[in-house]
Amino acid sequence: MSAESFDYSTLLRPDLPPAAARWAGFPAYNFVGGHNDAASVPIEELAAAAARVLQRDGRQLATYGLDSGPLGYRPLREFIAGKLARDAGISCTPDEVLITSGSLQGLDLVNQVLLAPGDTVIFEQATYGGAITRVKRLGVDIVGVPVDHDGLSSQGVRKALESLGRRGIRPKYIYTIPTVQNPTATVMSEARRTELLALSRAYQVPIFEDECYADLVWTGKRPRALRAMDGTDRVIHIGSFSKTIAPALRIGYLVAGWPLLSRILGIKNDGGSGALEQMILAEYCAKHFDAHVAALRTTLRGKLDALAGALEAHFGTTAEFEYPAGGIFLWVTLPKPVDTTRLAQLALQAGIAINPGAEWMTDAEPGRSRLRICFAHASPAVLQEGIARLAQVCRREFDVPPVAGAVHR
Amino acid sequence: MSAESFDYSTLLRPDLPPAAARWAGFPAYNFVGGHNDAASVPIEELAAAAARVLQRDGRQLATYGLDSGPLGYRPLREFIAGKLARDAGISCTPDEVLITSGSLQGLDLVNQVLLAPGDTVIFEQATYGGAITRVKRLGVDIVGVPVDHDGLSSQGVRKALESLGRRGIRPKYIYTIPTVQNPTATVMSEARRTELLALSRAYQVPIFEDECYADLVWTGKRPRALRAMDGTDRVIHIGSFSKTIAPALRIGYLVAGWPLLSRILGIKNDGGSGALEQMILAEYCAKHFDAHVAALRTTLRGKLDALAGALEAHFGTTAEFEYPAGGIFLWVTLPKPVDTTRLAQLALQAGIAINPGAEWMTDAEPGRSRLRICFAHASPAVLQEGIARLAQVCRREFDVPPVAGAVHR
Repeated sequence: MSAESFDYSTLLRPDLPPAAARWAGFPAYNFVGGHNDAASVPIEELAAAAARVLQRDGRQLATYGLDSGPLGYRPLREFIAGKLARDAGISCTPDEVLITSGSLQGLDLVNQVLLAPGDTVIFEQATYGGAITRVKRLGVDIVGVPVDHDGLSSQGVRKALESLGRRGIRPKYIYTIPTVQNPTATVMSEARRTELLALSRAYQVPIFEDECYADLVWTGKRPRALRAMDGTDRVIHIGSFSKTIAPALRIGYLVAGWPLLSRILGIKNDGGSGALEQMILAEYCAKHFDAHVAALRTTLRGKLDALAGALEAHFGTTAEFEYPAGGIFLWVTLPKPVDTTRLAQLALQAGIAINPGAEWMTDAEPGRSRLRICFAHASPAVLQEGIARLAQVCRREFDVPPVAGAVHR
Repeated sequence: MSAESFDYSTLLRPDLPPAAARWAGFPAYNFVGGHNDAASVPIEELAAAAARVLQRDGRQLATYGLDSGPLGYRPLREFIAGKLARDAGISCTPDEVLITSGSLQGLDLVNQVLLAPGDTVIFEQATYGGAITRVKRLGVDIVGVPVDHDGLSSQGVRKALESLGRRGIRPKYIYTIPTVQNPTATVMSEARRTELLALSRAYQVPIFEDECYADLVWTGKRPRALRAMDGTDRVIHIGSFSKTIAPALRIGYLVAGWPLLSRILGIKNDGGSGALEQMILAEYCAKHFDAHVAALRTTLRGKLDALAGALEAHFGTTAEFEYPAGGIFLWVTLPKPVDTTRLAQLALQAGIAINPGAEWMTDAEPGRSRLRICFAHASPAVLQEGIARLAQVCRREFDVPPVAGAVHR
């Protein structure tokens, strides 16, 4: 059946990342990435929304951009603008909201507009792995700044800006995930937000605010966004429906003023983001978003507690973590001897997938004994079983946790 | 409401394309791009498909890539593989089909994997404007080869390959739209296809085959694809549902062997293409694709005849064109004095949007008096009225067509 091979090796662009491996299905204990709770996908309501919105606006599918232009389906932009005003304090019009194909496209668009090889950006030292690899592929230097219980260290940012300034370098932006930080799951304090904005102003360095988890704070009250606290267009804001509705929906958004947004639109030459997804989501969210997310938070928190209990039972005091403020993942520190990159490889052979800390840090070394566990997808039973098995793998390779079955805090 | 501006001008990447203009709605006579017939959008069937597929597979939305991995929703890949085998003679497995966010992402992925600044590619001299701008932005040289009634000139390709070879240049690929070529709407003959493949083999230069219009040949019988005629992976094949179902659906596909596909997947870091679109399309197409496209062809041909009649009535012999073999656009040549780039600007002020020929050619000059008119979106009445108005604008500026109201062939 398959075509005979042709040798493309001499034609490939020289700086490509490695080839992908063939996909072999999800592992039994799937604790990586941003997968979410399958039972929470609002199937009936999405189908009803699809029927309603197709009936009303389906003919618009015959045109690129529907009848809304390149920013995306207007009712969805209206929902987002209203939601951001109410929940995050952001004042924006629907014409300052760009619908993107997931917040990943938001990252790509901002990077493509602002970054050239040799540029510098400031990141949280522990941050989303996909943001790190994207920037590194562009030949851009990352300066990592520590992040703690109160979020990104403003003292660290000041030091970084001063140090870069002495070398004549003005970073292109400060990238932060302030609310339910990935991977620490902390929330940046009001004081830190104020300090960070003051530094952004003083050094004329924009802030790139990624709020894709903010709706999942357990309290249900997300803090005011950095973009809301600043009166200017200095903060670029992105968000997503991946974590609140479903990750396979590739719908995110970007909020910026027209001077920047018009440059971003100038390079968004994809013929628009997926229209059915935008239409169905807009119709669904207007009615159901709040109730859905409230229920999802309860479900997620139950799973987090199952994970935390399993870690306590099987790793005891050797697995350290701060209880998350929300979200879908836990950031765990194991004792120094444990190399989690190696652990992840061995665990995968046992059907357990985890994100090793080195992939979620701007410098690999401080992440050496850390790992990120997504608890949103697996059932409580699978979480417990998977962590038990992970403890076995870890003990076999690293003698951690030290005593089988009987570790206690 | 809006945030005060922050000056990004000194932070922008230096080589950006121009900022986008604010969208002001579609013009009254919208003859550009790939917009399609609104009344043909199968609203009821799409809604029914959405309900069925969500009921069956909706829970898979909780994972990136559904349960199908990064290539895309497997039932859609199965439909495409089956359709390509039946209609285009291509033998491929569903694991050689990658779902993309429109065929535009297919263009981007192939370019990102193969092209580096300073590289050279061979294009049809008249071709899709978006493919030209994409490659030019990458700093890649385009060698344009003439295209006529029988498609891309194989003699022209031979000359180009010889000439490049003398300068030690091996082009990265030969890009062609063989079936319902954009903009000429011709179909490459079997003889030309054979000659082109022989040249590709002799010079070891892959062919990049873009078949997004092939299902819209009036006869309903598309010729064997270049990829089908070649026994190897030398031909990269892309296609789309934009022209057959709806352009706002951002679903295309790419067919290649694993050695190349694995490199393409290595850079497709978008979290997958839109899942709802893939699911609904797969469910819809399995039942309805053939009947829908047959009906659409009839509708489109009726509109084409309305356009051809309007051109004859209002431009007479001054508007020359070859009757298309299928598709959604007409490629028109006006007399030499007419500069269609200027005409397009003036026409837009009168509410008429056309694609000037210069944007659809690798070298602007031979396109100077040509234009591309998409007839799929407007009604026959709007086509007739728009062409009458276009003739007025053209006459006012260029004295072409010469006599108002009474031009005849």
